[in-house]
Amino acid sequence: MSHSTLAQIAKVDFKPAPKLVDNQLNPHALVAKYAVRGRIPTMAEQLKGTLQSDPDALPFDKIISANIGNPQQLDQKPITFYRQVLALIEYPDLLKNDYVNKIFPHDAIDRANEIMENLVSVGAYSHSKGVLYFRQTVARYIEDRDDHPADPEDIYLTAGASSAVNYLLSLLSNGPQTGFLIPIPQYPLYTASLALNDAKVLPYYLKEEENWSVEASEISEVIKKAKTEGISPRAIVLINPGNPTGSILTEETIAEILNVAAEHGIVVIADEVYQENVYEGEFISVKKVLRDLQKLDSTKYENLQLASLHSTSKGMIGECGQRGGYMELIGFDQSVLSQILKLASISLCPPVIGQALVSLMVNPPHESHPSHGPFRSEKLGIFNALKERSHKLYLAFNKMEGVSCQEPQGAMYCFPQLTLSKKVKAAAADSGMAPDEFYCAKLLENTGVCTVPGSGFGQVPGTWHLRTTFLAPGTEWIDNWAKFHENFMNEYRD
Amino acid sequence: MSHSTLAQIAKVDFKPAPKLVDNQLNPHALVAKYAVRGRIPTMAEQLKGTLQSDPDALPFDKIISANIGNPQQLDQKPITFYRQVLALIEYPDLLKNDYVNKIFPHDAIDRANEIMENLVSVGAYSHSKGVLYFRQTVARYIEDRDDHPADPEDIYLTAGASSAVNYLLSLLSNGPQTGFLIPIPQYPLYTASLALNDAKVLPYYLKEEENWSVEASEISEVIKKAKTEGISPRAIVLINPGNPTGSILTEETIAEILNVAAEHGIVVIADEVYQENVYEGEFISVKKVLRDLQKLDSTKYENLQLASLHSTSKGMIGECGQRGGYMELIGFDQSVLSQILKLASISLCPPVIGQALVSLMVNPPHESHPSHGPFRSEKLGIFNALKERSHKLYLAFNKMEGVSCQEPQGAMYCFPQLTLSKKVKAAAADSGMAPDEFYCAKLLENTGVCTVPGSGFGQVPGTWHLRTTFLAPGTEWIDNWAKFHENFMNEYRD
Repeated sequence: MSHSTLAQIAKVDFKPAPKLVDNQLNPHALVAKYAVRGRIPTMAEQLKGTLQSDPDALPFDKIISANIGNPQQLDQKPITFYRQVLALIEYPDLLKNDYVNKIFPHDAIDRANEIMENLVSVGAYSHSKGVLYFRQTVARYIEDRDDHPADPEDIYLTAGASSAVNYLLSLLSNGPQTGFLIPIPQYPLYTASLALNDAKVLPYYLKEEENWSVEASEISEVIKKAKTEGISPRAIVLINPGNPTGSILTEETIAEILNVAAEHGIVVIADEVYQENVYEGEFISVKKVLRDLQKLDSTKYENLQLASLHSTSKGMIGECGQRGGYMELIGFDQSVLSQILKLASISLCPPVIGQALVSLMVNPPHESHPSHGPFRSEKLGIFNALKERSHKLYLAFNKMEGVSCQEPQGAMYCFPQLTLSKKVKAAAADSGMAPDEFYCAKLLENTGVCTVPGSGFGQVPGTWHLRTTFLAPGTEWIDNWAKFHENFMNEYRD
Repeated sequence: MSHSTLAQIAKVDFKPAPKLVDNQLNPHALVAKYAVRGRIPTMAEQLKGTLQSDPDALPFDKIISANIGNPQQLDQKPITFYRQVLALIEYPDLLKNDYVNKIFPHDAIDRANEIMENLVSVGAYSHSKGVLYFRQTVARYIEDRDDHPADPEDIYLTAGASSAVNYLLSLLSNGPQTGFLIPIPQYPLYTASLALNDAKVLPYYLKEEENWSVEASEISEVIKKAKTEGISPRAIVLINPGNPTGSILTEETIAEILNVAAEHGIVVIADEVYQENVYEGEFISVKKVLRDLQKLDSTKYENLQLASLHSTSKGMIGECGQRGGYMELIGFDQSVLSQILKLASISLCPPVIGQALVSLMVNPPHESHPSHGPFRSEKLGIFNALKERSHKLYLAFNKMEGVSCQEPQGAMYCFPQLTLSKKVKAAAADSGMAPDEFYCAKLLENTGVCTVPGSGFGQVPGTWHLRTTFLAPGTEWIDNWAKFHENFMNEYRD
């Protein structure tokens, strides 16, 4: 086309319309909140920029991103065996290279060959449920874990657990009269997703003083109350081990909750992404308890619908950026399963490298193979460091004035309660912040430690908390926090 | 817990509730349709199962998945340089290995080192917009392509282009009174997403007889008509090169459509994932035309809002399973951008390996470096094969009785029109199928070629089409199709 034609088109006379602004957008999206990457983390990003242009501008030399469970950003090393196999399947020509045996242990090579026998290419769309071979390894893992059968056809690989949550909540939401029981405090993906889907959050409160435990009787009460208000409770989310609380559900509690769910026909969504992060006590999967109950009474539990979620982002694997995950779906009607598969197929397929990593996570090197020793010691090193830091941080919090913290049994977080003075509350109000948000902002400005205020997760009204990971290496940051806290308490004493 | 406690819990008396069925689910999800993985592909999967258990059971020995643009599933080889760099960043210890220079060319090693200097780990969550370094390479690519500046802060990396479409449509949908102009025929992700978001599809028809071209005046009419019906047109989707049509928009058409969009304040979503798949004519980006118009008249186009999408799944790269993509957002209000970023952050981040692949796609090996020669010949080999097959398939269709096909200028598909007899229509009705779906089912059963009926993409009522990729290697399948077609026409002649 000649340039003059474009000029003619630009000469056509019309009055240009204004831009869209946010109040014209999807109102459900506008109200969704996701504090893990909210106001405090946004401030931290700005401070990071400041430090880059002037390293001496602030009272600290780096930001410690304790706001999000992102182990490798905080120097956790990836587990070698996993990465070796992923490199080999990204570039399978390596498997035929003369030097491959000089670089990779034979079990990594064998595993990569086994995967490539069951996979066209990591660059091809897979089935929307994921590659069958990967789903088979997941099913075997679940069988070993629970001592009950698992079917690869019940496994749906996902892009992290988040995408499983999105599929489930969006499909189960049928307008604002559909209710979802969410623990408070919770991981804010749940409330954000429900806001997007215009469904109703039915909070059930965890008992802080009893290490954030939950009682089935309270859940039953929440359901009954919702029904009297015309809300139809559709699903209950269990986060086990707890995020942000770090608590672990007992078999008894799970069984009692399953009774309530079976009685009311409520789907159970078991977020079990921290199932390997267990420092005290024992993790028992909801699936295992369900199957045990079904053995005891085959008819009473046969309609129970369970989705259990796992991820490559947590555990000792910590591979957040690879976006691997799965959900196991038990007891759903075929008409519902078809809809879930349709939603998954609109997104085509989860990342295939992430799928492969799920399969590696659930199928570690065999004891008799060369990678087993290094694998075991890498994994144990990470586990012991997490366990040790969780305990240190817990002790440090309980030594701070006006701070109380339950001992984390699992996961990656402490969720201490802060007793804050009237002066803090007034100063916070002046800054347009909640008191816990104000504390987190001051902590960040003074130490570079980025956390998330309790309001992002939910808390009993009038109480104040924050969530911090215990992923950052070393203990200097904990000491700096304690010093900051002392000064803060002195400055804002009533 | 003792086993007796579990037994006691199982003895609690209650009446179990029934399972959920689909009509209790999100009604918007229920109506969403995604034919690319719909009924015919589902039949194909069953036939694949049949062949696996008995290779002689059917009149063909394999399924040819021509239903979906999935090049590597159809034996397209990944481009070596990309995979070499990805393997190195999955397992960066390789970069320090003594043998690395014996296996990898130095520019692959240099590129991997450059990436690792700008990236903590592919296993860490990145910024929700993606890693800055990757966004910088995308911005440079766009600058070179369009000869206009591009800003890395306008680039949002995504999990394929599909996730960009999801963010945009979900945010821009404000109830059933919000309209979206969608070309007919279209890629069904758009109508599926709009169904999920309960927004209104405003179809604009492409002129088949003029190689599926589009006229700005028709778009203008659709907008005016919608407004009189109380619908607020919010965005227009341009798919260029076209899917399923293979047509390419001219600069003039794009400029005229931009006039309409500027006048009515309508967001332009430019789906440009096939920008490298151009066999006839020239691809010109919507961004380039917009910037050219803005040079000619700086005020009239300043409010124009454009999202342009690209992907690693198509082009000659064809890396669908890696889920890489980006969108460039131009002209949006800051309040809208904040909401898009929030949605992206709820999903945490796009797969980091996919992000790296986007960066490699837009930044190929330098001419003076060792990988350039092999890279160029691999890419050219794929391009020439696609171009040749597209032409062969187009000729084959136009030789078939009652079939007419426009010559594809770009993308990966033919979308021939089928003239079907009354007998076909009656037989289709007896099977509960549309006539084109019936044709596709018979084609599949007789040849193993899996396609998608035109109804999955939209078509002028009373016309019948199908979409097939031209990705499958060889030409035997085209010959088999022609033979099937002849028999089919004879069998169902009126």
